[in-house]
Amino acid sequence: MEVELKEMSSDLETLKRSLPDPSHHASIDKMQLRVQHLTNLAESAPVRRSKVKDMSAEVVDSNPYSRLMALQRMGIVQNYERIREFSVAIVGIGGVGSVAAEMLTRCGIGRLLLYDYDKVELANMNRLFFRPEQVGMTKTDAAVQTLSDINPDVALESYTLNITTLQGFETFMSSLKNKTFCPSEEGSGVDLVLSCVDNYEARMVVNQACNELNQTWMESGVSEDAVSGHIQLLVPGETACFACAPPLVVASGVDERTLKREGVCAASLPTTMGYNALKDFFPTMEMKPNPQCSNAACLERQKEYILAKPARDAAAKAKEKEVSAIEGPVHDDNEWNISVVDDSELVTADIRSSDALPEGLVRELPSADEFHKPTSPQETINPVDDLEDLRKQLDALNAD
Amino acid sequence: MEVELKEMSSDLETLKRSLPDPSHHASIDKMQLRVQHLTNLAESAPVRRSKVKDMSAEVVDSNPYSRLMALQRMGIVQNYERIREFSVAIVGIGGVGSVAAEMLTRCGIGRLLLYDYDKVELANMNRLFFRPEQVGMTKTDAAVQTLSDINPDVALESYTLNITTLQGFETFMSSLKNKTFCPSEEGSGVDLVLSCVDNYEARMVVNQACNELNQTWMESGVSEDAVSGHIQLLVPGETACFACAPPLVVASGVDERTLKREGVCAASLPTTMGYNALKDFFPTMEMKPNPQCSNAACLERQKEYILAKPARDAAAKAKEKEVSAIEGPVHDDNEWNISVVDDSELVTADIRSSDALPEGLVRELPSADEFHKPTSPQETINPVDDLEDLRKQLDALNAD
Repeated sequence: MEVELKEMSSDLETLKRSLPDPSHHASIDKMQLRVQHLTNLAESAPVRRSKVKDMSAEVVDSNPYSRLMALQRMGIVQNYERIREFSVAIVGIGGVGSVAAEMLTRCGIGRLLLYDYDKVELANMNRLFFRPEQVGMTKTDAAVQTLSDINPDVALESYTLNITTLQGFETFMSSLKNKTFCPSEEGSGVDLVLSCVDNYEARMVVNQACNELNQTWMESGVSEDAVSGHIQLLVPGETACFACAPPLVVASGVDERTLKREGVCAASLPTTMGYNALKDFFPTMEMKPNPQCSNAACLERQKEYILAKPARDAAAKAKEKEVSAIEGPVHDDNEWNISVVDDSELVTADIRSSDALPEGLVRELPSADEFHKPTSPQETINPVDDLEDLRKQLDALNAD
Repeated sequence: MEVELKEMSSDLETLKRSLPDPSHHASIDKMQLRVQHLTNLAESAPVRRSKVKDMSAEVVDSNPYSRLMALQRMGIVQNYERIREFSVAIVGIGGVGSVAAEMLTRCGIGRLLLYDYDKVELANMNRLFFRPEQVGMTKTDAAVQTLSDINPDVALESYTLNITTLQGFETFMSSLKNKTFCPSEEGSGVDLVLSCVDNYEARMVVNQACNELNQTWMESGVSEDAVSGHIQLLVPGETACFACAPPLVVASGVDERTLKREGVCAASLPTTMGYNALKDFFPTMEMKPNPQCSNAACLERQKEYILAKPARDAAAKAKEKEVSAIEGPVHDDNEWNISVVDDSELVTADIRSSDALPEGLVRELPSADEFHKPTSPQETINPVDDLEDLRKQLDALNAD
């Protein structure tokens, strides 16, 4: 706009010089003033902050990273600036994905890959991030617009596509494999994939891609009534994949689109981020991979993980020795009073290796062992009695 | 800008007609095209969404409230639209306050009162909400700019002042008492005060105001290392006020400004919202008011609360009867499978009425009872032994 106005001004100047009659000059001078005013208006429009070459720890108001670099000085992270080497892919730029993207952008993440096929609508304004003036833009483009204003240091890639289509999946895979940003990167070209989608089909596609690429990812979901949700960390081969313990809707092969009710709109709130908000209940549990998983790539990763166990154990032992030899007592001169808790102290339960579930959780279905438990001949001797029992049980259930 | 451009266009038209020489017309036509182009640019600038008279539950993309009104259809709230009658005051528009304000704005709250004396700096960009182009604006004005764009239905009041000054406190009090927005409102003119400040002095001022006004409020805080925090609900007379169980820094009368270390900058992250993030630990406890509280208004509220007990009990009993008579079994036809948990099932502990603390919490100081426990004459018989013991204990502590 400023360029156009400058040219306009020079056009007026030229015209003025070519006009012999001074009576016309006043009218041109008036227009020159207008152009000047318009230029002032255009220049007062917001200016973006310039890029920062190195993250500084200097405690000044003009340093966008001072509060983050303080984490390093306080011993919370060893080398904060390493965050600039990391790439995170976010699939689904809705209520969860957009906020994850904004948080990572403000933290100064190196690179974000954003995937979504949807457009911004006024109906999305009940969640954080998007603004009404972005209605009609694709979610990925609107996100790039906002995020690049917030932090121009982040490399942003916008993929407006549906990963559940054949072509979308191909672009998704090749973008995850692209190592141009950090050629020394092991594995795929990204460090983490965040699944922030709203349907099981897309989750299964992310699962497929991450199993194939041996890519660590996190799954998230918010319930239809907006007051509870879940977060799951998936490390191929090491923890259950999404197909190892699929939700009933996937396990039973039902097309979820047939489950959608006419005129029903899922509720959502700007506050729900993955726990039961009404009960203030957020249990944690571990899930081991399923040796009978239906996903072939998952089975391969499981095999690799088992084969690598001796090497992993040796490395862990060596590191333990090294740390205790070099460091001595941990946090001896801890000026910030920070204490570190051993992971094993956390309340976790392995639902496969033991029967213990975190407090407040119950099994929806019998475990496979219980299911296949051989029944004694005594128990099946009188089928009529059994049916009678079953009917009574059903009646009791219906009366609840 | 559009108006200026329109006038510019008519100026050019007038000039063209007054020029006899057609050789000048081409130059003016060219400028007309430029003005047209500038007009197009100006018109493509963001347009704000218009106000909404009534909240609609219609499931269409253009309805900013469809996902929120769905909460009503699902039985999570009875009458969602009542949110438009509520006023919330937010003191401190930093990392916590700005996000609370944005969430309430997106939820369609009736009215927000925002208090802060600070300006937006680039150093704030590590937390959500503010944008680099707002640097230099006051936090309250920048917040009103962003929030009114997000939801023009919310009545926003910006108070750029320091509540800990005499004049600031007076304006704070009179703004909380103002009932113009909802004249039928009981008590003060707001329904809730959220304290989102970063120092104890300001918290004690909010405490004073809310005790005087018998105003329910919530206190929040994030630790200096950004990885833990707290939330506290304060109902004057019913729960402990902020002075009933003050942090050591307040109890000991130390001026907290003398505690600030040279060149130290508190860390902060866009993710911390009030719990121990490193330990995933968020215990809950109840705190009864302190009958020896130093705050006179708190003691008055405590007296009123005790005096009102018979009336409160009678009302609770009557309501219980009424509900069980009218409603019958709760959630009989609960199509959304939502279950409601009784508050008493939550893990809570009254630190005054019993010795039980939530798991993982320990007392920093002995309780008053233990402190005043009379020591038996036997125990003080040999002061030399006692000193010896004390020295040994100190040595043992230092060796840890």
